[in-house]
Amino acid sequence: MTIRYTVDFKNGRVELSHGAGGRSMAQLITELFAAAFDNPYLAQGNDGTLLPPASGRLVMSTDSHVVSPLFFAGGDIGCLSVHGTINDVAMMGAVPLYLSAAFILEEGFLLSELKRIVLSMAQAAVDAGVPIVTGDTKVVEQGKGDGVFITTTCVGVVADGINLSGDQARHGDKILLSGSIGDHGMAVLSMRENLSFDAPIVSDTAALHTLVAAMLASGVNLRVLRDPTRGGLATTVNEIAQQSAVGMLLDEAAIVVHESVAAACEFLGLDPLYIANEGKLIAICAPGDAAHLLAVMRAHPQAREAAVIGEVREDAHHFVQMTTKLGGRRMVDWLAGEQLPRIC
Amino acid sequence: MTIRYTVDFKNGRVELSHGAGGRSMAQLITELFAAAFDNPYLAQGNDGTLLPPASGRLVMSTDSHVVSPLFFAGGDIGCLSVHGTINDVAMMGAVPLYLSAAFILEEGFLLSELKRIVLSMAQAAVDAGVPIVTGDTKVVEQGKGDGVFITTTCVGVVADGINLSGDQARHGDKILLSGSIGDHGMAVLSMRENLSFDAPIVSDTAALHTLVAAMLASGVNLRVLRDPTRGGLATTVNEIAQQSAVGMLLDEAAIVVHESVAAACEFLGLDPLYIANEGKLIAICAPGDAAHLLAVMRAHPQAREAAVIGEVREDAHHFVQMTTKLGGRRMVDWLAGEQLPRIC
Repeated sequence: MTIRYTVDFKNGRVELSHGAGGRSMAQLITELFAAAFDNPYLAQGNDGTLLPPASGRLVMSTDSHVVSPLFFAGGDIGCLSVHGTINDVAMMGAVPLYLSAAFILEEGFLLSELKRIVLSMAQAAVDAGVPIVTGDTKVVEQGKGDGVFITTTCVGVVADGINLSGDQARHGDKILLSGSIGDHGMAVLSMRENLSFDAPIVSDTAALHTLVAAMLASGVNLRVLRDPTRGGLATTVNEIAQQSAVGMLLDEAAIVVHESVAAACEFLGLDPLYIANEGKLIAICAPGDAAHLLAVMRAHPQAREAAVIGEVREDAHHFVQMTTKLGGRRMVDWLAGEQLPRIC
Repeated sequence: MTIRYTVDFKNGRVELSHGAGGRSMAQLITELFAAAFDNPYLAQGNDGTLLPPASGRLVMSTDSHVVSPLFFAGGDIGCLSVHGTINDVAMMGAVPLYLSAAFILEEGFLLSELKRIVLSMAQAAVDAGVPIVTGDTKVVEQGKGDGVFITTTCVGVVADGINLSGDQARHGDKILLSGSIGDHGMAVLSMRENLSFDAPIVSDTAALHTLVAAMLASGVNLRVLRDPTRGGLATTVNEIAQQSAVGMLLDEAAIVVHESVAAACEFLGLDPLYIANEGKLIAICAPGDAAHLLAVMRAHPQAREAAVIGEVREDAHHFVQMTTKLGGRRMVDWLAGEQLPRIC
């Protein structure tokens, strides 16, 4: 009789025992998670992780990731789960410090795919400089999950004097967007629907905290930062308009939509304004700062296509409107219904 | 045509739109999560939550909760998800400060049940004094989840001079257990299997941070704290033995197993040593401190049945052994296989 002491990442599958708290789980943690996320915090091996004191106000954000399919052009659920939560912390003007990662695995899921996802997460965390310091693994029976769900939580600190919030947009402020919209959502959807287009659509998934750091370092009077993820640009600007009790007027011609994304949206009857992004941000600043902020953004590799896409207006109804390319004006409402489920 | 502006918590069900980032999701967040978890942090309404500076070393812990069934005697997935993560932070000797909560909902899940769960979470958070400061909601299609999964992350701070870790058990140290074992696991299992016993089995799910605070305040030289959850007491002591590179000798007669739990375990062929607990802790202390620590624990309502259940021994193999009630001695190994899946 041979006792198998190692996890079979080539042909093995997730079993219920991998989440039961015993030896199998310990092996999976040691051979996969601890090996991939390798850092001294995670290596403590206790239920919670002890971290140094943090100087400054804390910021905390969490996201469950249920994207389907798990792999798509430009990324996968692994790197997405790192970028998404880092970005939420970065949008507060904070420096992201630590990530936690909790996995809900479906019995029967290929360990080879899990390993691929975990290595992608690990690379994203290294690239971002934000270690995954603690985690959890649960397994549900086949048919009670969908491969893998990953919930990440990020803790960061925000320096004194930085106060970004969705309720600070003021009449006359300029609205900037860091680049093209719709890439992530259409990359996932085209993979899901098995569509292919002449030009491939690649997710923009990325961690934006270095871009944010450059914007904060510019000395510009930033009011609001937010990343237009689920619900897309349209929903995000509506959220800000409501929080700040203002209206907005966008300029359609200034909003970059890559040709392949526009074509895919037209084919599927979708509006790119409502398609999720994972590597873009909206910035709102005082009008006199817009030109300088735009230059700073365009100097960063993640915002070469940045543009001023509109301005904040007084409006008792907190409506967002848009000047169309044809010179008309239309309402830009919140997303209604589920245009695109499981996009992140 | 009537436009429905409110969520129907009486007859409604989770729809994919509740996770799509648009108006439906905003309504669910406002009318359920924000209303139930009501606190000024959550009310900020940004992607991340801004929190005050924290004084001391940080502690961070995360857990996904996939317990099945969702409701059981003594608790439900809601309060469990609050207690479980608070306890992981408390076991580091830390004061839990903030919780995040991320929900993965299955399309078609009853909103009335979701509300019941969320209210239970809210009450648990209030009782523990640890606010839920940020969250996330995702929805997966029917058959791709199982009602609701909840991932919580807790951040706390640990005071200077407190250094608890699984690698600090030393030869001669005493091992204390705060009460009976097996109650949580058997409460869930008896509900799942629709078993009924003469005496009802009630989960011990509870937040243990006030008990830990009392133990720390006693001045006792505590080495290790850990809560014996998945894998039960047996697995937890083996983890500590391995981390500390020691052996252990337990005393079966000192380990409290309630009669109904013992009967249920016998009926199902389970060993209570491997059954999960959610409101118990193991403490390891210097031998001279054991009597004082035991008195302090017994004075706390959560540890009236506390006992010294064994001691740390030198053992190059890091084996855990147990003196049986009949006077023999047997090995207590790690949990192998999935004795009891989805117990937390």
